[in-house]
Amino acid sequence: MPIPSTFLPTRRAFLALAVVAMLTLTAPDTRAQTDPLPSWNDGAAKSRIIDFVQRVTRQGGPDFVPVEERIATFDNDGTLWTEQPMYVQAAFVEERAKELARTNPELANRQPFKALLNGDKAALAALGEQGIADLMIATHSGITTAEFEATVTDWLAKARHPRFDRPYTSLTYQPMVELLAYLRANGFKTFIVSGGGVEFMRPWTEKAYGIPPEQVVGSSGKTAYRLEGDRPVIEKLPTVEFVDDGPGKPLGINRFIGRRPVFAAGNSDGDLQMLQWTTLNTGPRFALIVHHTDAEREYAYDRQSHVGRLDKALDEAPTRGWLVVDMRSDWRTIYKP
Amino acid sequence: MPIPSTFLPTRRAFLALAVVAMLTLTAPDTRAQTDPLPSWNDGAAKSRIIDFVQRVTRQGGPDFVPVEERIATFDNDGTLWTEQPMYVQAAFVEERAKELARTNPELANRQPFKALLNGDKAALAALGEQGIADLMIATHSGITTAEFEATVTDWLAKARHPRFDRPYTSLTYQPMVELLAYLRANGFKTFIVSGGGVEFMRPWTEKAYGIPPEQVVGSSGKTAYRLEGDRPVIEKLPTVEFVDDGPGKPLGINRFIGRRPVFAAGNSDGDLQMLQWTTLNTGPRFALIVHHTDAEREYAYDRQSHVGRLDKALDEAPTRGWLVVDMRSDWRTIYKP
Repeated sequence: MPIPSTFLPTRRAFLALAVVAMLTLTAPDTRAQTDPLPSWNDGAAKSRIIDFVQRVTRQGGPDFVPVEERIATFDNDGTLWTEQPMYVQAAFVEERAKELARTNPELANRQPFKALLNGDKAALAALGEQGIADLMIATHSGITTAEFEATVTDWLAKARHPRFDRPYTSLTYQPMVELLAYLRANGFKTFIVSGGGVEFMRPWTEKAYGIPPEQVVGSSGKTAYRLEGDRPVIEKLPTVEFVDDGPGKPLGINRFIGRRPVFAAGNSDGDLQMLQWTTLNTGPRFALIVHHTDAEREYAYDRQSHVGRLDKALDEAPTRGWLVVDMRSDWRTIYKP
Repeated sequence: MPIPSTFLPTRRAFLALAVVAMLTLTAPDTRAQTDPLPSWNDGAAKSRIIDFVQRVTRQGGPDFVPVEERIATFDNDGTLWTEQPMYVQAAFVEERAKELARTNPELANRQPFKALLNGDKAALAALGEQGIADLMIATHSGITTAEFEATVTDWLAKARHPRFDRPYTSLTYQPMVELLAYLRANGFKTFIVSGGGVEFMRPWTEKAYGIPPEQVVGSSGKTAYRLEGDRPVIEKLPTVEFVDDGPGKPLGINRFIGRRPVFAAGNSDGDLQMLQWTTLNTGPRFALIVHHTDAEREYAYDRQSHVGRLDKALDEAPTRGWLVVDMRSDWRTIYKP
């Protein structure tokens, strides 16, 4: 049927729309060609990442993954930000416990608070896991979730890293922040899956990584709901509920996300099972390990480290085809300047 | 500076792009004017919902809520689909337990399976909560998450509702499916927050409601991770981990979502605390209760019902300003024809 001439302007408008829609749809690829990962040095690591993303997003290609299945999970400590010389959350616990003890003489006179106030590392070490548990309970429970959030936000605003003298939230890895954004631009939904406390991370992950609270999976304590007059509160209780580490990570992914990831990143044996759960599956899958090899710009550690020990996962990496990122040679920049 | 004539075509193309971009951005509002809730009768209930959505999405208006905070949580049983004469998951447990007992003589000869096979309701009732717990354990544990998912999918494909003789997934409420879509078109992220098992819901919620697995919060059992050769599996264990009902709902929202909702919908006292947690907060908030008043097209029940009892929440609704939806008069259609 010939098209009446009166329809032509509409048809032209339709074609213009179609062209724009196509431009929009292909935008990620266009952008990819202008280097989506500028803080990564050119080389095998960067190429493998880009190649994977291009394969799984190529409509009609053999490795195409539908958008709704593009789930990417990232460990936090040592994978997205610096975890040396101690986990940031441990620094929070230490300073917060001191603060509580200073204003509460009853606490100040008993362990582990006394040892902490006196800087008595030997006494603290002698108290072992129970000492750490007591500090966690004192700093992480008996308050509402809203109060805890405010405490974390206040502390992060003033705390400084002992070596770099910068706020902890400025010690996120620029190459990983770029990787998160690159995956999202290609339809991935990015999640944190961390051994850290979920309520310690949620106040700042959206700003730091573009990851909203509802996409943060972490360890948690039990909570209780009550109504104070007409004000509902959730109180943090002194009982561990879930430890999102090691074999706990696939369980956390199963419980919170309910889909197996297509892409996962970690840096220690605490991520081993998450990388297995992600890659030992059918279809295209990708896992990477951030290997801390840069003592000058950051830290160098792996098999012997107390924080972020990387041993079994490093052994499994070659067999499983996991990408081991060499921080010193693969990353042009570590932190945002 | 005058624009050189050689730039004009580019400028025209840019303007065309800008117009299309604006059309795209305003699309939800345009659609809203063509009735976003056709299965709702015109009246106060429908008007209140639309008025709220327009207020919180009006950029620069006094009630504007940023997109990232537009969290909406929905109960499932009795709020999004029919829960009478028994919860769908209970029907699954009953049929699945019979199936297991038929192929396992050891089970067939002991309670509660014997009573179930013989249709001996008195014996079953006499076993009380322990009987139900035994049936839950037999049908929900000792298998992997992947096996459980397949079992649920298979069962839903063949099971039929006893009164309507239709698949359970076709007994979702069309007005609520429209409401979910309307909220999403206005930038809301929609979640299910249900007392039902999270792994019972996830296999079908995306297709039924447009809600992906990672936005389903529910009750769960403990799980364990292991590697079988090179195949990682998650096994469902016979221990309850979390009950996402009553006061558990705000706790589930806090743990899984980490943000307080702006909009919540429920139908029973199991939703009371979720509605409180949502609305007793600063800023514009909305809660609705689906009141089952339509014995002809669905069911009529509230204060005395064993399944989906609505008593305290109905008492609180007027004081709290919660919208009580009268299914019989407010809904033009119940199910998709």
